[in-house]
Amino acid sequence: MKFMTFLHQELESIGVLTNDGRQVIDLTAASKGSFPKSLLDCIRNDSLIGKVEALLEGEVEDYTYDVDKITLLAPIPRPQKNILCIGKNYAEHAIEMGSEADIPDDPIVFTKPPTSVIGTDAMINLHENVTSELDYEGELAVVIGKKGIGITREDADNYIFGYTIINDITARDLQKKHKQFFIGKSLDTTCPMGPVIVHKSAIENPHNLHIETKVNGEVRQSSNTENMIFDIPTLIEILSKGMTLEPGDLIATGTPAGVGKGFTPPKFLQHDDEIQISIEGIGTLRNKVMSMGKEK
Amino acid sequence: MKFMTFLHQELESIGVLTNDGRQVIDLTAASKGSFPKSLLDCIRNDSLIGKVEALLEGEVEDYTYDVDKITLLAPIPRPQKNILCIGKNYAEHAIEMGSEADIPDDPIVFTKPPTSVIGTDAMINLHENVTSELDYEGELAVVIGKKGIGITREDADNYIFGYTIINDITARDLQKKHKQFFIGKSLDTTCPMGPVIVHKSAIENPHNLHIETKVNGEVRQSSNTENMIFDIPTLIEILSKGMTLEPGDLIATGTPAGVGKGFTPPKFLQHDDEIQISIEGIGTLRNKVMSMGKEK
Repeated sequence: MKFMTFLHQELESIGVLTNDGRQVIDLTAASKGSFPKSLLDCIRNDSLIGKVEALLEGEVEDYTYDVDKITLLAPIPRPQKNILCIGKNYAEHAIEMGSEADIPDDPIVFTKPPTSVIGTDAMINLHENVTSELDYEGELAVVIGKKGIGITREDADNYIFGYTIINDITARDLQKKHKQFFIGKSLDTTCPMGPVIVHKSAIENPHNLHIETKVNGEVRQSSNTENMIFDIPTLIEILSKGMTLEPGDLIATGTPAGVGKGFTPPKFLQHDDEIQISIEGIGTLRNKVMSMGKEK
Repeated sequence: MKFMTFLHQELESIGVLTNDGRQVIDLTAASKGSFPKSLLDCIRNDSLIGKVEALLEGEVEDYTYDVDKITLLAPIPRPQKNILCIGKNYAEHAIEMGSEADIPDDPIVFTKPPTSVIGTDAMINLHENVTSELDYEGELAVVIGKKGIGITREDADNYIFGYTIINDITARDLQKKHKQFFIGKSLDTTCPMGPVIVHKSAIENPHNLHIETKVNGEVRQSSNTENMIFDIPTLIEILSKGMTLEPGDLIATGTPAGVGKGFTPPKFLQHDDEIQISIEGIGTLRNKVMSMGKEK
């Protein structure tokens, strides 16, 4: 089941994609308002999947729209806290950012603020007054489905709701200048997310998904999630050692080799560039980069 | 005006402290529910101070309680995003953490999650199964009052609502092990905040406040906010370069010298330690450390 948040006739709704990927069923309208209004609140609701299945067995034709009639938003347009991000979780990417010495022994964790989130097809601000080294990072993101602390590797899957794609757009110059990554990772519009959240039941093995990033059609990143250094259960175990994870929390699991900074000379983002990140079983997150003028 | 969030007869309310500091006026009850229920929502409301003043001119005796009859919570018990924190913003602290080479040329910024927040008098979990180097950091925190991006130093004061105290409790071993600070800064109960938010009109100069941290009555940190390397307008200017700041955002402005790790041998926190952080014009944030057992 692929969940989405979208605008239809200027109203924000949540929905599921039909199996052929061509239509969306509006859960907000079909449930006559009895469903939580946000996907975040739905994820907090234990019995979501059963309720959706029951709803879909009824008469939903009136609430089914062609996908070209809606505007997709980020599945969680306003996360309840910063997005958790894992640094250098693919060995070849760690090497392209420095050397083999950069391959981490323990997960490197930083965050991106809720204000950085945008949906698929929304514009990424080039922020040329703040950075001249804006870069892309295609990543598989885990959506937490259940509150927990001290979660073991073995039990981690029970705390997952599903998966989405995040583009961890990074201002490399700011990332370096301020030492801790946050400032270089926090600019508005630098966390494209989507297009959908896929429920975990539809992903047989999250550690065997092809992940690919194209810029203007050119393949820049092409890898498989099997190449993560720290797998998802390990990340959940380590993150939840003393920190409570909550439904709707997002963990971006790191990016493979092929970021702009990894090329000689570097291929940083420019006005009008189009980035497409595709992950097997989820879909394609597509955003264009735009100079938005003199905003600081 | 000192704002607080508290429990009275098990109900959560917001209030203001009387001038003598002995009583609290319950704004939630006095306004007959017409006030926003959380201090966060109040701060989002432009005309808050005028409304509170009007309310206080009326009959509020029935809604005035002795402070020993209430339980203070963190002024913002659940921030809308991670707390922004500045690393090594006092030169002597940077030196005690390493050497003069650690004095930063640009602000170091990291975050603490909303799940780490507790109020004054609440217990800090020793987290002994996760860390053996829990440490305190007394800090002045700025509360943002107005949405903005690209805010200049000169205009920064217009975006401030007020000030509070934050204890940026840190697991030094985790901070070091995971390279980026987040994991060492994110454990549950490691962001004591309060006791109140003081409106900026009551603080003549936020860069001339005595700040002192005691552990079991022993003075560990004693400094003045004039010693910040990057002052508050500079921090707001730099943070808002490309990132929108929102009402209710919190910026912990860094800690002076005297943290546990700075002593030889280090004085890390232990079960039953009591930490008191006092900042001139705000009050005292007081928390005890407690071993809470085998939670991971």
